[in-house]
Amino acid sequence: MVDTAQRSSNKTPARPTGTPAVTPGVDTGPVLIAGQSGAPTIDLESLNRRLLGTWADVRLKARELTARPDLQRIEGQSMAEHRARVLGQLKILAENGHVHRAFPAHLGGADDHGGNIAGFEELVTADPSLQIKAGVQWGLFGAAVLHLGTGKHHDAYLPGIMTLEVPGVFAMTETGHGSDVAAIGTTATYDPATQEFVIDTPFRAAWKDYLGNAAKDGIAAVLFAQLITDGVNHGVHAFWVPIRDESGTFLPGIGGEDDGLKGGLNGIDNGRLHFDGVRIPRENLLNRYGDVAEDGTYSSPIASPGRRFFTMLGTLVQGRVSLDGAATQASAMALTIAITYGSQRRQFTAGSDTDEEVILDYQRHQRRLLPRLATTYAHTFAHDEFLVKFDQVFSGTASTDADIQDLETLAAALKPLSTWHALDTLQEAREACGGAGFLAENRLVGLRADLDVYATFEGDNNVLLQLVAKRLLTDYSRRFASAGPGVLARYVVQQAAGRAYHGSGLRSLAQVLTDFGSTARSVGHLRDAEVQRELLTDRVETMIAEIAGKLRPAGRLPAKEAAALFNANQDQLIEAARSHGELLQWEAFTRAVETTEDAGTKQVLTWLRDLFGLGLLEKHLAWYLINGRLSARRAQSVTSYIDRIIVRLRPHAVDLVDAFGYSPEHLRSAIASGAEQERQDEARDYYRGQRASGQAPVPEKSHKPQKPAQSPKAG
Amino acid sequence: MVDTAQRSSNKTPARPTGTPAVTPGVDTGPVLIAGQSGAPTIDLESLNRRLLGTWADVRLKARELTARPDLQRIEGQSMAEHRARVLGQLKILAENGHVHRAFPAHLGGADDHGGNIAGFEELVTADPSLQIKAGVQWGLFGAAVLHLGTGKHHDAYLPGIMTLEVPGVFAMTETGHGSDVAAIGTTATYDPATQEFVIDTPFRAAWKDYLGNAAKDGIAAVLFAQLITDGVNHGVHAFWVPIRDESGTFLPGIGGEDDGLKGGLNGIDNGRLHFDGVRIPRENLLNRYGDVAEDGTYSSPIASPGRRFFTMLGTLVQGRVSLDGAATQASAMALTIAITYGSQRRQFTAGSDTDEEVILDYQRHQRRLLPRLATTYAHTFAHDEFLVKFDQVFSGTASTDADIQDLETLAAALKPLSTWHALDTLQEAREACGGAGFLAENRLVGLRADLDVYATFEGDNNVLLQLVAKRLLTDYSRRFASAGPGVLARYVVQQAAGRAYHGSGLRSLAQVLTDFGSTARSVGHLRDAEVQRELLTDRVETMIAEIAGKLRPAGRLPAKEAAALFNANQDQLIEAARSHGELLQWEAFTRAVETTEDAGTKQVLTWLRDLFGLGLLEKHLAWYLINGRLSARRAQSVTSYIDRIIVRLRPHAVDLVDAFGYSPEHLRSAIASGAEQERQDEARDYYRGQRASGQAPVPEKSHKPQKPAQSPKAG
Repeated sequence: MVDTAQRSSNKTPARPTGTPAVTPGVDTGPVLIAGQSGAPTIDLESLNRRLLGTWADVRLKARELTARPDLQRIEGQSMAEHRARVLGQLKILAENGHVHRAFPAHLGGADDHGGNIAGFEELVTADPSLQIKAGVQWGLFGAAVLHLGTGKHHDAYLPGIMTLEVPGVFAMTETGHGSDVAAIGTTATYDPATQEFVIDTPFRAAWKDYLGNAAKDGIAAVLFAQLITDGVNHGVHAFWVPIRDESGTFLPGIGGEDDGLKGGLNGIDNGRLHFDGVRIPRENLLNRYGDVAEDGTYSSPIASPGRRFFTMLGTLVQGRVSLDGAATQASAMALTIAITYGSQRRQFTAGSDTDEEVILDYQRHQRRLLPRLATTYAHTFAHDEFLVKFDQVFSGTASTDADIQDLETLAAALKPLSTWHALDTLQEAREACGGAGFLAENRLVGLRADLDVYATFEGDNNVLLQLVAKRLLTDYSRRFASAGPGVLARYVVQQAAGRAYHGSGLRSLAQVLTDFGSTARSVGHLRDAEVQRELLTDRVETMIAEIAGKLRPAGRLPAKEAAALFNANQDQLIEAARSHGELLQWEAFTRAVETTEDAGTKQVLTWLRDLFGLGLLEKHLAWYLINGRLSARRAQSVTSYIDRIIVRLRPHAVDLVDAFGYSPEHLRSAIASGAEQERQDEARDYYRGQRASGQAPVPEKSHKPQKPAQSPKAG
Repeated sequence: MVDTAQRSSNKTPARPTGTPAVTPGVDTGPVLIAGQSGAPTIDLESLNRRLLGTWADVRLKARELTARPDLQRIEGQSMAEHRARVLGQLKILAENGHVHRAFPAHLGGADDHGGNIAGFEELVTADPSLQIKAGVQWGLFGAAVLHLGTGKHHDAYLPGIMTLEVPGVFAMTETGHGSDVAAIGTTATYDPATQEFVIDTPFRAAWKDYLGNAAKDGIAAVLFAQLITDGVNHGVHAFWVPIRDESGTFLPGIGGEDDGLKGGLNGIDNGRLHFDGVRIPRENLLNRYGDVAEDGTYSSPIASPGRRFFTMLGTLVQGRVSLDGAATQASAMALTIAITYGSQRRQFTAGSDTDEEVILDYQRHQRRLLPRLATTYAHTFAHDEFLVKFDQVFSGTASTDADIQDLETLAAALKPLSTWHALDTLQEAREACGGAGFLAENRLVGLRADLDVYATFEGDNNVLLQLVAKRLLTDYSRRFASAGPGVLARYVVQQAAGRAYHGSGLRSLAQVLTDFGSTARSVGHLRDAEVQRELLTDRVETMIAEIAGKLRPAGRLPAKEAAALFNANQDQLIEAARSHGELLQWEAFTRAVETTEDAGTKQVLTWLRDLFGLGLLEKHLAWYLINGRLSARRAQSVTSYIDRIIVRLRPHAVDLVDAFGYSPEHLRSAIASGAEQERQDEARDYYRGQRASGQAPVPEKSHKPQKPAQSPKAG
């Protein structure tokens, strides 16, 4: 993002960000591209707009905010200072309305769900604590009132939530139950005599835990508890519970603890809460999906308790949407920092006596950063589609049951991949910047520490992927449930034929014949987007079909044995779900490539998409070989083609990160500020001057012959 | 490590650590082991001793120290407080002599190199900042005086170093040069007129950087600079340079900066130094490997400047040794915490209505933790052999040139693998503990933050692996250089035959015939240690031979093209080096298994070694398939056999981490303290009591029939 950034090691002249790059017409790769005379160039401006996505204007507006120093993290603050600073920043956000878009228009919001999330995500560049604490207040606490409450709750509570007059707690997780929310221990028992619910924490494991705003700032909570009336447990429901008085003291019957220091996000006051006979009025039940009449009669628009539970939870999907987006931004920032630095930093003279190599010219360095850049592009495009889907469901323009289920599956598939990718990318970027990467002043370690918990909150990544897998299995079995026996029979025959074709290696044999021993031919094959799509799709479908086959006996087994059978396939199930998510990302990337107009940009994006797609094939290469989908020769050409794409992409690396559009105010990274380029220039000028002056000390070797070597001993 | 730990989900009664486990005689795996009637048991005491290794007594003594609260980290301290605390802790270590073992006996040391490192490594359990700051003072600064200086330096400087009267800086790295130390910019120019060296920092990139003790505590430095005398640059040498006066003020001509907050290790005051015409007496040159006479004449016992440089650097290998050991201990601690917690924590009822499953009983959870446990065992055994080798070289009992080179290659191969493994394991353990893992009180996030930089300091991991690869290539070419042409011809024939055999799939075909379609037979094959060894060895040798073949033209090419050719193979080279390191670890593990006497322990360790070995095969499965080493069927059985070993190892998981021998004082992790077991017991008792009383609220479903479902909409 810096003006002095070297666009390649060929000393391309510096140019301001945003100007279309005129990369020297050299394809440094050893392979000529058919029908191409010069290297393509990227149209930075249109690519930047493309990456900003559907809510580009909201994001640009948000980036003006996140460029403000008073909204940014100060590294090295104590936990207390950091918490106080972030609370103050929330007030700024509340005052300027940045966080109100999703709320009803009649209360001062804009009923704009997609734009709201886009704006939230951008806060991660200022401070992830700010993003998450804002998310707790307006995204979890506020959204629970909005989506689980009804009109009277909206009118009573949302104004105070929006202004931050009422900082609140989203009190769902307990020490004993995080992933399995349905099993929480807190109870809300209806007392018809007083028309109140009585809230109780029956044992230590049922303490509410890890709750943002609980340790210090929260004065009310949306509390999740088992709703019990008339001796019947109707499952988990949400209640509005005041927890502190105006002096910040817990109300009677309520106690808590500070979770203390965490691995990151220390601008948020996470804590624990417990309740002992706390009474709240009947009306405090957020009663959109379940209500209790004065006499204690329970009613719900959703008959099935299981479905009701998942419907309530489903309204809170936005947390996963915004983590997916924020994590992808963190990856983009990490790569902007590491690739900018890598294109300026020099180390070791490999090809000459005087000139050190730019570290991004080393193959290993490229291999570490460019595939992660390709993945970050895939995540960026997939996230925008995800956000559009979210907006359609929540605005009601496309919100059938199927849409809702698709959205939830998308969330469960994408959030794990993007949050893990962010951690992996931040770490690789940090290592790729060496000791400098470890300094807080270069941002990478701080971002990584903060993003760490994104992998396990708002749904543990492994648990989410299991949900995806179950959905894939359901879809798979539904295809046959709704089909007549003829369809099933035909499918079985196809499968058997397929198994014979793939399993016996007939398909690989066919590939050997097609390729005729030519690597070029097998590479040409792999560059075909439809071939990539087929291979990626085939893997997901085959894995699911295989697992479904193995699980078939489960229906006839006792619960314990059925569980054991499922458990014996759990790891493969999660792998299948991950591959499904990767396929969705590949498809989003491909759609983005297809709709790119500028020819140069399209060419570079095609390479980048190929790098992503072939990277997936390389990762799962053993599967493709074992299952006869790729011949050994074609499998080998996956890696060699990746090596070639990387060489082609190298000259575009700086453009590809500049296209994310971060300014120095967002990156705030000393090593990506141009300082490294200045240091390198100064050092090279010094040595050049010394050589020119004839005053340089000569190296020992050329000076005089040496005595014979003596054997040195250490120790 | 806690007494209440459940050894398996079968409610094994609690027993004190150290007592041999009597695991219920149930092999939960679906496969019977030939010739085995009951499940094996581990002899915890002998296994613990085995893991403590050659310097077990030193380690136990050190663990008494690290159990002292005054030597331990206090989470959440400010950088200034943490720095002050660690400096104070160093004084305690100096007073009790814990850190003096490697120094000469006549100065109060013990000339004990191996024991010294073993003792240092253990400090990581108290606080990694303590380990590294002690390592800077006595391991780098002190060792540089010891190994690069001569008698007069020892007598003059070591006593003050040992007592910490003179806290010091190891001033090697510069902002501009970390990996390529030979290219540092700082100069020490001899002035015969005054018989002084003049130290200069010629440009900003030549500032010394990232130096422990430089920001605050250091009053002297061992400074590395280009030694220039009489117009000749004799390369990098080390000099004793006082930097601060007794008030802590920089001496004239010296300046510096604080590196500020880092991603971890904030108990160490890293900083920058620069020098402007600073004059030091001629005698301050640490002159073991190079000296300057009064008249400016340079002399050295090692004629080749390159060899001299590497000899000087080689004496400092101990940093890599101790990082390998400390990183492995961090992995062991992480797994002790996560496996203890995983064996107590319950979530989701899969197989019954009332009992939640212990999370370590889930296949995915096992897959996340047990292979990492196997790897940690491999690293532990490999580290002990590495430390023995180090001790032999530095004590002089086996210190030929070949020994020294072997030691350095071992260091360059093992340190990257163990430090990366520690980061990976700490992260997986943290995620496996969910939100609890993110709290500082559970230790995982703090250890991970501190260990982060282990991957890039004391030799960047990627650069080190490249050194290993170069050594492997040299060995490979030496085999032919020393051999007559007959040997080479024979080798070429073998290679060609081998290629025909492997490449055409003849070998896989042979496997298909051997296995006769039987999975049991192919698994039996893979369980054979010699088969594992052959497969792992073959991969390293074949990769190196292939790369050597590709690099052969380099000798005849101009420097620039030769560098490009090398660069085009860099990624594969590093992969080959990594596989070499993995093979060394597998061999060490196998030797440990072979010399284990207790039959039960030996059986469990064999499974664990198989898990490590097969895990490596699984990771590289595509290579084995592409290169015709494994048939598709045999490749498939790798994964299915891993699944089975994991089931067998599950009941031993807690024993296997208890065997590391950490006490609660070392772990200091709330979730591994037994608190989780108490919470689970209390919750289960509560529900049990409720059910027994008949007072439990009934679930809605069984209460009354429901109305038909209505379609819910989100938004």
